[in-house]
Amino acid sequence: MKQHIYESRVRYAETDAMGFVHNSKYLVYFEEARTDLVRAAGYPYSKVEAEGIIFPVSEAKLEYKKPIGYDVRFRIVTTIAYMRHVSVKFNYTMLTDDDTVVCTGSTVHAALDRNTLDFADVPDRLREVLQPYVEPRR
Amino acid sequence: MKQHIYESRVRYAETDAMGFVHNSKYLVYFEEARTDLVRAAGYPYSKVEAEGIIFPVSEAKLEYKKPIGYDVRFRIVTTIAYMRHVSVKFNYTMLTDDDTVVCTGSTVHAALDRNTLDFADVPDRLREVLQPYVEPRR
Amino acid sequence: MKQHIYESRVRYAETDAMGFVHNSKYLVYFEEARTDLVRAAGYPYSKVEAEGIIFPVSEAKLEYKKPIGYDVRFRIVTTIAYMRHVSVKFNYTMLTDDDTVVCTGSTVHAALDRNTLDFADVPDRLREVLQPYVEPRR
Amino acid sequence: MKQHIYESRVRYAETDAMGFVHNSKYLVYFEEARTDLVRAAGYPYSKVEAEGIIFPVSEAKLEYKKPIGYDVRFRIVTTIAYMRHVSVKFNYTMLTDDDTVVCTGSTVHAALDRNTLDFADVPDRLREVLQPYVEPRR
Repeated sequence: MKQHIYESRVRYAETDAMGFVHNSKYLVYFEEARTDLVRAAGYPYSKVEAEGIIFPVSEAKLEYKKPIGYDVRFRIVTTIAYMRHVSVKFNYTMLTDDDTVVCTGSTVHAALDRNTLDFADVPDRLREVLQPYVEPRR
Repeated sequence: MKQHIYESRVRYAETDAMGFVHNSKYLVYFEEARTDLVRAAGYPYSKVEAEGIIFPVSEAKLEYKKPIGYDVRFRIVTTIAYMRHVSVKFNYTMLTDDDTVVCTGSTVHAALDRNTLDFADVPDRLREVLQPYVEPRR
Repeated sequence: MKQHIYESRVRYAETDAMGFVHNSKYLVYFEEARTDLVRAAGYPYSKVEAEGIIFPVSEAKLEYKKPIGYDVRFRIVTTIAYMRHVSVKFNYTMLTDDDTVVCTGSTVHAALDRNTLDFADVPDRLREVLQPYVEPRR
Repeated sequence: MKQHIYESRVRYAETDAMGFVHNSKYLVYFEEARTDLVRAAGYPYSKVEAEGIIFPVSEAKLEYKKPIGYDVRFRIVTTIAYMRHVSVKFNYTMLTDDDTVVCTGSTVHAALDRNTLDFADVPDRLREVLQPYVEPRR
């Protein structure tokens, strides 16, 4: 199984008055990690949307382990928990350079027709490029 | 048990290119609902922080039921799932004016000493004002 | 000339690690003030867009006078500096409850056809409802 | 005179329902460009803050030239218009890969003592590293 690594650092605008990253911003980081995975896999999300399919989040879970502040470098390890006909679940682990786990989480996405908002099949081409990231069944 | 109702409407800046509210913004709405509850209960979060306690989110779960777009009015019904020595769990149900459920979710918060970031007891005064919102055990 | 008053308070997610509202959020506040004006005037921006016209910002200026933190209540006084065939300029003054000026600014908007992104005339109906807010020429 | 180049691409969360980057996000991009400059120059902003000086924005101007959407790559060319005892002005030009100007702007920053919020001198060490980016007087 492949794992995707996305690297970035905390922007000032992502911190709040506690001095750390605001809890909502991790969903933005996970989105960046996820879209970086599909881009790296050769099928950017912009192309998916251009073909009339959107992948809104239907469920999200986050466990915040350790606060981090401005300018801290981090990486997110992304894998795919499962891939079904109309849905995909991603798992994320976010770590700092010294391997401290900052946050873990998951998002479930449903494939929808952009115009009708009806469920749609995950496009074959996307399914192919995502397959290597799917975790083995336990 | 009391329920707290927070009312607002979708800002343009909260939408994304799909035309609906971005998935990360619901955590901001839940935060508004939660802080509106403690403000209404007579103990604003700004005062909690001034007394040296912060309440960062340690866990969050969201189920996105229905996309909503710019300018849509909504309300969030907030209750408290439990209140322990150092943690509190809030439940949220977000609905539009026609009672459609848009999103449900929960957040768990740990009380921390602002300076040391060690666990702290939930302040008694806060505990008192939150008590009426605690759901009965099932 | 009419002035429009928009009232709100600072959300936690709008603060940054300095402890005050992040500089980019004032543009979100101005947007709220502006769309609240057109809503109050009887022609909500959602309707403008539904009729195929968008009003992106073409210029913005901000003068930050005084930092404000979480939960501070404020109001924004909005007027219209000018209204031309294809553009409108709004002026904003943001104040706290004790009449301290927090931030002043302006935004210029061009009317564009949503599909072609070509310049379009400001719709007559919008022009009518905005007229009372236009500042007299000096 | 040196110019600083910051490169990034548009995140999904930065777009709005018009399909393009929201007008407030350019101030976040400019902030990233500016802090990337001081980091590259050897004096990261996190260190400036740790030494008790903050640099809030006191003025900002933006001219939006061309809308850009999700995933578009861009670069921001940053220079310094002037550097005074207690203030610094940055100029920004944001371009896409085909050299189209997307947005231009400037921000003025005042050096403040973090605790008292009184004006402070721009620290000598920061002054030194910024000097090469100051535009020649015309």
